[in-house]
Order: sequence, then structure tokens, then C-alpha cells
Amino acid sequence: RALFSFGSALDASHMSENGALPRGGKVLTVDTMNANVKKVDYAVRGPIVQRAVQIEKELKEGVKKPFEEVIKANIGDAHAMGQRPITFFRQVMALCTYPQLLDDNKFPEDAKNRARRILQSCGGNSIGAYTTSQGIECVRHDVANYIQRRDGGIPSDPDNIYLTTGASDGIVTILKLLTAGEGRTRTGVMISIPQYPLYSASIAELGAVQVNYYLNEEKCWSLDISELQRSLQAAREHCNPRVLCIINPGNPTGQVQSRQCIEDVIQFAAKENLFLMADEVYQDNVYAEGCEFHSFKKVLFEMGPEYSSKVELVSFHSTSKCYMGECGFRGGYMEVINMDPEVKAQLTKLVSVRLCPPAPGQALMDLVVNSPKPGEPSYQTFMMERTAILSALAEKAKLTEEILNTVPGIRCNPVQGAMYSFPCITLPERAINEAKAPDMFYCMKLLEETGICLVPGSGFGQREGTYHFRMTILPPTDKLKILLNKLKEFHQKFTQQYS
Amino acid sequence: RALFSFGSALDASHMSENGALPRGGKVLTVDTMNANVKKVDYAVRGPIVQRAVQIEKELKEGVKKPFEEVIKANIGDAHAMGQRPITFFRQVMALCTYPQLLDDNKFPEDAKNRARRILQSCGGNSIGAYTTSQGIECVRHDVANYIQRRDGGIPSDPDNIYLTTGASDGIVTILKLLTAGEGRTRTGVMISIPQYPLYSASIAELGAVQVNYYLNEEKCWSLDISELQRSLQAAREHCNPRVLCIINPGNPTGQVQSRQCIEDVIQFAAKENLFLMADEVYQDNVYAEGCEFHSFKKVLFEMGPEYSSKVELVSFHSTSKCYMGECGFRGGYMEVINMDPEVKAQLTKLVSVRLCPPAPGQALMDLVVNSPKPGEPSYQTFMMERTAILSALAEKAKLTEEILNTVPGIRCNPVQGAMYSFPCITLPERAINEAKAPDMFYCMKLLEETGICLVPGSGFGQREGTYHFRMTILPPTDKLKILLNKLKEFHQKFTQQYS
Repeated sequence: RALFSFGSALDASHMSENGALPRGGKVLTVDTMNANVKKVDYAVRGPIVQRAVQIEKELKEGVKKPFEEVIKANIGDAHAMGQRPITFFRQVMALCTYPQLLDDNKFPEDAKNRARRILQSCGGNSIGAYTTSQGIECVRHDVANYIQRRDGGIPSDPDNIYLTTGASDGIVTILKLLTAGEGRTRTGVMISIPQYPLYSASIAELGAVQVNYYLNEEKCWSLDISELQRSLQAAREHCNPRVLCIINPGNPTGQVQSRQCIEDVIQFAAKENLFLMADEVYQDNVYAEGCEFHSFKKVLFEMGPEYSSKVELVSFHSTSKCYMGECGFRGGYMEVINMDPEVKAQLTKLVSVRLCPPAPGQALMDLVVNSPKPGEPSYQTFMMERTAILSALAEKAKLTEEILNTVPGIRCNPVQGAMYSFPCITLPERAINEAKAPDMFYCMKLLEETGICLVPGSGFGQREGTYHFRMTILPPTDKLKILLNKLKEFHQKFTQQYS
Repeated sequence: RALFSFGSALDASHMSENGALPRGGKVLTVDTMNANVKKVDYAVRGPIVQRAVQIEKELKEGVKKPFEEVIKANIGDAHAMGQRPITFFRQVMALCTYPQLLDDNKFPEDAKNRARRILQSCGGNSIGAYTTSQGIECVRHDVANYIQRRDGGIPSDPDNIYLTTGASDGIVTILKLLTAGEGRTRTGVMISIPQYPLYSASIAELGAVQVNYYLNEEKCWSLDISELQRSLQAAREHCNPRVLCIINPGNPTGQVQSRQCIEDVIQFAAKENLFLMADEVYQDNVYAEGCEFHSFKKVLFEMGPEYSSKVELVSFHSTSKCYMGECGFRGGYMEVINMDPEVKAQLTKLVSVRLCPPAPGQALMDLVVNSPKPGEPSYQTFMMERTAILSALAEKAKLTEEILNTVPGIRCNPVQGAMYSFPCITLPERAINEAKAPDMFYCMKLLEETGICLVPGSGFGQREGTYHFRMTILPPTDKLKILLNKLKEFHQKFTQQYS
């Protein structure tokens, strides 16, 4: 890379990394920019989605298409798909934003009490003040209480809670701490394939090493320890794998891990000296009978002090998913377990550079973990809204699986949880041979012909020679039915066309 | 670093970077963590501030102190210092948050119109939906219009506007793009000394090279081109300086750059092939007579096509400063000028990984750039509130300078703009000899004895052998007077004690 010699240091500054003059006289070009950033890929907002936005504009401008609207089933964005916000949450947020409303008798007392409590924890009683970098103290206490309740009384320490700008922010921050070494000692990060591309993108950006382990599609996207072992062994040949990332319930795969599986993973991490990252943002999104959400924290502590005093674990949650779907607020938290105190001090220092997560997102996170209790005036409405949303999601999960499995050439695992199906599609030989990226080609054609916007499986990773797409289950039931039937039709046509 | 050989790749994974067994069996320790993160420093929330938080707790618990409250003059956090939010902004934000209020006749029509317009630009008409990664389209249009108005009609393109999570987020993102090369080709980033420590922290985190240029304290913290030249020349001996960062109005130094100075800087950047980053978050905070804010964008375009078609510039703004002080919302934008289109595509891709800046912060940014117009129902109240805040700040800027300059051993430049004074303090020999960090020692003692929380000059950088502190001008006038007089008393006592 630094092959040319520095005759004059002055000259070097006018040259790009490989010694060429900067193109067009620009200081910053793709040749002279951060090489890691170039490697970053994020399909959930990639070319298909960009084309979808274009098509929407064309439709608005009156361009004739074989459809009337674009249905964006590419991203877990509940409100954009018509889901209504939880009334209580928005009431409290409005009260926090404009405290003059505290005198308004249109707002229930429990909403006012929540708002008053949050405001009292804010500098100058305003959510316009910076909060402490780790997050508002009372919110961190409420998060700890929530975790303790959720996990059957296993204690949670507010000092271990860090509020974040969505879960993504927390995940990137922890990966950043963990990235070290050079060459064969460079940190390897084990991620599932298929994965949520935030992981691959952050690993690329940080220059860490992506270590793939494959989920077992035949066994409903379950996680096999033997595959973890294979993947780890292979990685140790060329890097230092130190982190194991788990998404449960799964994104994009929709599986819910059994308690046994989680125990096995923890045992594996302990044996192999791996740092565990548990992405649990879909913890309320469990639909399939017999499935239940088990937090890594809870299982870890139930395994006894041999594990609970040793295994390093960070778990992530968010305001963006579950029944609330408040993505725009960028709220989230992480709980760090068994983190070296000196590293924790470094973490606290690191987050302080960005000052604080958005205060409205923190307040909203508080409401999620401290929702209306039985007996409070807002309890019934809250429960009604929450239940309605989760039941509809469960129904749509089932519907998606059922209809997709009626299509020859599409095989869909049960959507046990989360918000996505990730079916395997059989593509005709000619399409595979002609297209550079057959699943991308398939999804682009689908978009152009039907207005349905999905993400090709390649954006998440898939076993070579297999093809998938990710589709959210979020469109309203009637629209989802139309979408699924259009998809069925398209798939049959596509198969004929390229056979 | 990789001195030991890999007898077995398996063993390596149990070892830290330098081959030692991990301490206490932890995977992640200060020895095995990201070395760049360890180098990060952020004094604005450093040890002094942590001690201040502790003292506040002690006071609450009834511990006797020589003072009754901690006055935090360490951070530009207006609301925490008692400044009230702008009514119009909060009304619109409440309407966006809880749209049922649109039927409430307590809210003025212009607030409702703003809220309706923002909501119509949001997915599902909810600020709970993800926005596009670059930011809500109508907000970006409003930002472009604002810039165009501010800069006397020089056009601004909404496609060049990126909404951000506070200005910090934008600054880090651009620095990230610019960081490349290894060793002598590594990107050097020129920053003023004193600087706002977000810069040094991000440079350390990214592993770029910090290149210092010193502001001229004798000439009211002005920027001398000869010093830029000296700094650049020296840096070219060991790295590839490609970026020049400017903070105007200055933080922590409070100077406002003349139009001539900005023109000279642009000329220098053009000649030396430097990418310009202009941190202009204090653009409304100009107090001194004869001073005026000139945006880099405007000056660049007034210099003619030779410059305006060539020099790469990114300028940053935020909702956190000026008259609104809405730090908690983490709103901000950046405008990129003359950025290589391919790099812009990379930037758009990079920001998409984090999905979007917080939607409430984006909405608030919209209100800042699209505030009530003459004739609208909220105009008068808005202008009254805005003027009152800015006049009070101007008065406090003057007061700070005047009182500090009455203290023998303290010399304070005029606070022409921004929110801080950065006076030079003469410390007695014995204090300098005894303390490892004399200004830190001074500030810590000040905190313990008076409850006043300042940041030592070393957190921002200062010429060797000089000592300073940064103090905000944000406390309410009566409290600021008390603070300044306590400080005066303390300084005299401290000087006697260590003479």
C-alpha cells in the first residue's frame, strides 16, 4: 500500500492512498476515503428500497404502473404500515414535551404522574436538557425493575443499564469496545447466517472479522451447537473470535429459541471464552404455540454461579419493535453483565462523547418498561391496544406461513416470533444463470411488476445456492392477503418465464 | 505486538493482544479492548463533573458543605440552567406527538399547520415511523430554504442536507469518511487549540492524527493563517493532513471570526487541498458590537466560482445551542458542498445503517429553520421569547468578561459569541510544582470549596505553561453574579495559599 517512497512529505498530501493524484481535484474521493466504510452494506435500505422510493414518486407524478401503490414489506416499521401508537405512551410524551398540558383534565392521572416523574429527573425539569450519558437515572431504575420482573426476580442493577439511541447504537458501541488486534489476532465476531445486516455492516466499518455460523433452515432456523463449534474452529485459523452474537427472536428468520438451546449457547460461550451479545428487541413478539421468550440473562442466572458470575453478556432492547413499534424515537437500552469494571468505565467515557441518547426516546423507553398497572386509569385501554396489536401480528404470522406454503417453489418456516418471514424460493435455472444476483433480480422484478418491496436473501446471508427474501408481516391483514396473493401469482409467472 | 508465535490458533483466543492470559478470566479487559477507545478523552463530562454529581448526592443526603448547591457551569446545557423552552416549538412537538391535540383550540393555528405538515411527511403520519436515513424530506427542504435566506439568496440544495443526531453525530460521520491511510499517509485532522473535545475524542477513536493549530489568545483568540501554515507544514512530516476544522463562533473561546478571516481560511484550504469542516452551531450566539456571523458557505460562494465550485465544505448546525438550547432532542443537520457524488452515495449508505436520526429531533430542527413568520399568530410571542434569551446571554457575556477581569491573575478575552468564557489564570509557582495537572487541581479545589463546576483548560488544550478554565455564561444573571464573585474570592485565596 505504501509502496512509493516519500521524496517530499509535501507531495504525499496531494496524493491518494495509492499514490495517484486525487480525481477531479477532490480531497475526498472513493479512492481516498475510509476503506472500511466502502465495505459496508445495508440491504434493508439498499437498491431495491431506493427504487421503491423512486417508483412512489413516479406514481405521484402520474406515471402509469401495473399497480397503484408500493407496499413496503422491507422494513420492520410498524407505524408506516398503519399501526396506531399506544395512546398512553403518546399522552405521556405530549405532557413531557409541553408541560402546560399537566393542567389539562383531558389527560388521565397516571399519564400525568409518569410525566411529572420523568420531568423531575431531567435538568431544569425539561426534556430539552442533556441527560447523563448513561441515561436518565429514574429510567435506568425502571428498566432494572422491568428486567427483574420479567426474569422472575433475578436482580438487575441500574448501574448496569445504559440507555441507547435505538438498539443499533448499543450494538455498535459494544462491538467497538471489542474490536482489537491485527491480522490473526484481530477480533472475530460470530454472527448467524441469515443475520440482521446491522451486524455485518458494523463489523465491516470497525474492520473486525465476520465469522459466520449457519442457522438450520431444515429445523426451523434453529441454532446447532455443532455448527457453532465448526464455525469457531475454522475462524481460529485466521482471527481471534471473541464475540458471539445471537438474535432471539430471530431477524430475519422469525424463530424463537428454546430454553435448552440458550443454555447450550451459554455453556458453549463459557467453555470457549466468548463474549455474548443477545439482541432481544423482539421479546414481546412471540406467536407460535409452545414457544416462549427466555432472556439470556435469566437462563444465565438459572445455570448457577459457575456461569452467572463469569459469562460476559450484554443484552439489547428497543422501543422500535414489540407492540409499540416506535422506531422514530430511537429509544433503547442495554444491560451489561459481568463486564470488567475498568471496561465499564471506558464504556461510560465513550458514550459521554456523544453527550446523551435522545431524551424523548429515553422517556418512551421508560413507559415501555413501566406501562400502566392494574387499577390505574389507563390500564384497560393500554391492555386492549397492546393485545389487539399482538393478536393481529400472530394472525398475520400464521397467514403468511400458510399462504406462502401453498406456492410451489416457496417453502416457509413457521414465523414463531419477530416480524418477518424468510422463505426459501426455488428459482428456475435460467434466472440463476442469467442474473448476477438471482434473488436481487427476483425482488427487483417483483417490485417493478407488483409494487411489492421485499429484501433479497443475499442482504442477510444464505447458504450458497439457496435463495430467499425477507418480508415483514406488518401490512394490515387485508393488504397482507393481497400482497401474498400477488406474490404467489408473480412467483408462478416468474418460474414459467424463466423455465 | 504479535511477538509470540501461534503454536496453536486455539491458544491464541485465550490470550490478550500481548499474549497474556485474560485477567480474571474476562474476555474483554482494558488490555484486550479497542486501544483507540482507551485514548479517548472527554473533559466536559470528565472527573470534575463526576465529582460534582457525587457532591450533589452528598448534599441531598444532608452532608454539610461550605455551599448549598452545585452550580454546573461546565456544559452548554441551557435548560438545565433554568432557560425555558420556546413555547411555539414545544406546542408543535406536542401536536406531532399526540395528534389528537390538533382538535384542541388551545393551540394556535400556525402551530397546528406546522405539525400537520411534518406529520404528512412521516410514514403512516406518525413520528414513530422510521424516516428516510438522510432525514424527512420536507425538513430538508426547510433547512435548505433557511440556509438560502440566511446567506442572502445563495442557493442550497435539499439533496445536500443530511439531518443528524445532534451536530456531534454529523461531525463524527464526516471524520469517519475522511479517515484513511496508514503511518505517514494516515489522515491528519487540523483542529484549533483550544478545541471542543468532541474533535480530539473522535480523532482518537478513529485512529486519525490530531494536528493542532493554536488560536491567538493575545488577539482575542483569532485565527492566524501563518499559524495554520506552520501547523500544516509540521504535520506533513508525519501524516497526511487533509481536513481543517473550524468552530465559529468559537467553543470554548467565544470569539467570532471576521469575514476576512473566513476568506483567508478558505483560500488556505483551497491552496493546500484541505477538506473544510465548519462547526457553526452557535450561529445565533453573537453578542459583541461590530461582530457578525458569516457562514463559511456564504463567504465561499461570494469568493466566486474558482472557490465555490472546488472547495469541499461541510457545515454543521444543531437544535442544542442558540436561543432554543434543546440539547435533549439531539437534532441537527449538515450541509455538504462540493462533495464527490460517489462519496455522497457512500455517506448516504453509511447513515442508513443506523436507520435514521430521531424523528422528534428532526421535527424540532424543522421549527428552528421555519420559525413563526410576521403575521402568524405565534410570531410575537416567539420573537419576544427569542429576543429575551439572546439579550440575557449578551448581558451575561459582558458581565462575565467584566467581573473576571477585575480579578488579579485572571485575564478574560471578550466573549464575542457562543456560550463560554475561557480566561487565562495565573497560578502560583507552588501549585504548579505540586500538582500534576495544575488547572485540574484548581478546578477540583474550586468545586470542593464553592460548589462551582468548571472544566480545566487542559480538557480543551492550551499553550504549554498557560492555564485556563471554561465557564458557561448560562446560569441566570443573579446566580452568575454570585458565581463570579465566589470565583474571585476563591482565586485570591488560592493564590495566597500557594504563594
